[in-house]
Amino acid sequence: MSAFSRFTPLIQSLPSTIPFVGPEAIERQRGRAIAARIGANESGFGPAESVLSAMREAASGTWKYADPENHDLKQALAAHLGTNPANLAIGEGIDGLLGQIVRMVIEPGMPVVTSLGAYPTFNYHVVGHGGRLVTVPYAGDREDLDGLLAAVKQENAPLVYFANPDNPMGSWWSAERIVEFARGLPETTLFILDEAYCETAPAEALPPIDALIDMPNVVRTRTFSKAYGLAGSRVGYVVTTPGTAQAFDKIRNHFGMNRIGVAAAIAALADEVYLKEVTAKIAASRQRIAAIATQNGLAPLVSATNFVAVDCGRDAVYARAIVDTLMSDHGIFIRMPGVAPLNRCIRISTGPETEMALLEAAMPAVLKKLA
Amino acid sequence: MSAFSRFTPLIQSLPSTIPFVGPEAIERQRGRAIAARIGANESGFGPAESVLSAMREAASGTWKYADPENHDLKQALAAHLGTNPANLAIGEGIDGLLGQIVRMVIEPGMPVVTSLGAYPTFNYHVVGHGGRLVTVPYAGDREDLDGLLAAVKQENAPLVYFANPDNPMGSWWSAERIVEFARGLPETTLFILDEAYCETAPAEALPPIDALIDMPNVVRTRTFSKAYGLAGSRVGYVVTTPGTAQAFDKIRNHFGMNRIGVAAAIAALADEVYLKEVTAKIAASRQRIAAIATQNGLAPLVSATNFVAVDCGRDAVYARAIVDTLMSDHGIFIRMPGVAPLNRCIRISTGPETEMALLEAAMPAVLKKLA
Repeated sequence: MSAFSRFTPLIQSLPSTIPFVGPEAIERQRGRAIAARIGANESGFGPAESVLSAMREAASGTWKYADPENHDLKQALAAHLGTNPANLAIGEGIDGLLGQIVRMVIEPGMPVVTSLGAYPTFNYHVVGHGGRLVTVPYAGDREDLDGLLAAVKQENAPLVYFANPDNPMGSWWSAERIVEFARGLPETTLFILDEAYCETAPAEALPPIDALIDMPNVVRTRTFSKAYGLAGSRVGYVVTTPGTAQAFDKIRNHFGMNRIGVAAAIAALADEVYLKEVTAKIAASRQRIAAIATQNGLAPLVSATNFVAVDCGRDAVYARAIVDTLMSDHGIFIRMPGVAPLNRCIRISTGPETEMALLEAAMPAVLKKLA
Repeated sequence: MSAFSRFTPLIQSLPSTIPFVGPEAIERQRGRAIAARIGANESGFGPAESVLSAMREAASGTWKYADPENHDLKQALAAHLGTNPANLAIGEGIDGLLGQIVRMVIEPGMPVVTSLGAYPTFNYHVVGHGGRLVTVPYAGDREDLDGLLAAVKQENAPLVYFANPDNPMGSWWSAERIVEFARGLPETTLFILDEAYCETAPAEALPPIDALIDMPNVVRTRTFSKAYGLAGSRVGYVVTTPGTAQAFDKIRNHFGMNRIGVAAAIAALADEVYLKEVTAKIAASRQRIAAIATQNGLAPLVSATNFVAVDCGRDAVYARAIVDTLMSDHGIFIRMPGVAPLNRCIRISTGPETEMALLEAAMPAVLKKLA
């Protein structure tokens, strides 16, 4: 297939890949509609009714570009977080922000430290900028903080990434350990603390905003895609120092935010009652998933996120077979970690009871078929 | 202000800038609401009612990420254009796509050819990737195609950009001249033919899709932000060879599209009646703007876009004073070209009669005040 001949050597070296195959592509490949969409850590509970109303109302203004300064959203976020608008940068979801951060820090050949089996989209961006991934195995299904720190120092790495709570395992470290990790880093290492799942985590897992806000080498990434139920709206943000936040203005797509998504995010912040309700529902759904797993002789891991990793007790081939059979026989879309030893697990997103009931009904049949 | 100390040298060299100050920022700076928003080449006519309905309906699905393959939108676009889905790449507006293209082609120091005073956001991306802008002056308020081609050859430039119809002047070249330009390029030069304003252009300005579809070094960029009235939805696309289209998969943010925007774009393609109606309204509004200009002794340029450049007959200081006074005294937001000799003009976007009436009422007072 004929492509332009003079793309940069880096671009020519990259595969035309995708970090995740989307559920729609799975539907097309299998010729089967998804009955339970509980694989992408979206929230089937959806956004608040107040948010849906705000979105529908904002539709008529969609002929206008969004405010490139994201003034109102930054004000709302700053009030929500107890910080200043200058400490924030807004982007098209955490994925978009990760791409910007990697671009700002990484030149070809530079080492980037992350956990083996952690977020593939981060790795995608690192590879896309020519970075060299230095991976540290999980320890006991948690990020190995000591190992990550040692790797940073050994490599003199300019960038380190992990999520707390973690994806794909759902585990977490205490705020104290996170702060200790950040304070132990060289100032020349940028630490991306991905808090995509912060709203569903216990308070003790989240450093107060003030605890890291003085560190130019710490960026905390957050999103409206998980607990807020707005994955399709593409709104994420970064909390860091004003100086580091301002650096995003050097390269971001200033008019890249969609107007309805911004309106949705502002409305979501205003509806604290819903957030409380939905996080309770997510917590209950975690218990429901854990119970289904246990009923079927599988071992659910404790989770601080909107999904549960379930240890299937065997190898990746077995876990993959469960994932595939749930989809092919029952239209149930889930995912699984990509790397050993995490890939002995399957990963099931929380969701409404309809989806949970489908999972509960299907799982015994799937395991029986694979026995 | 304390920023991370180890951003790349390129990033450290960049200003924290913004290609355009948004109208919301102007409102905040001046403490005055905008009464007529006719400066950003948005469409105050808005999207079709059918599109607004589709958006409101899509809101309830916004808990889901959009399909990363953009399958349905590509199918609809391919049918609309008479090409294949494989010839398309989808992105977060043309601005986002321009950033991706520049990243794929430009390494620090490489020359990039464009017109002096053309689209600032393209220049922003070039500078952001360390490219060296080689600019060719407009000739008679049109892109100087011969000059651009000569500059490409002289510099052995890997990338050349212009828009047809042009922004900020509204002028255009015939399809034949565009094809001739493309065919005259070295195969090692990627040509971005920005057709953001194609829907409002005369047919003779638009090369048939087939005319350039075999060229891996030609990418045509288009958007739903202009005639379709969906600037806030952030949906743009590229038409090129399958090989070049696939290259976008190497670096794009696969889950970057917002779901309601994609639904809006699909609905917009389906409503051909509205597109016909709205392009007629835009054409009429161009005439209205031209008449207002002429009534006030100013010289409107002929336009193929959703805006009209108006020659104010003096220098940039005068044009700027008109822009500023329209806003400060009347709340009328327009813009103007940034570089001589184009900046003897002001640039007024088409829009509904309410806005046109405000412009008509304000212009004599503004010119009198400045006389």
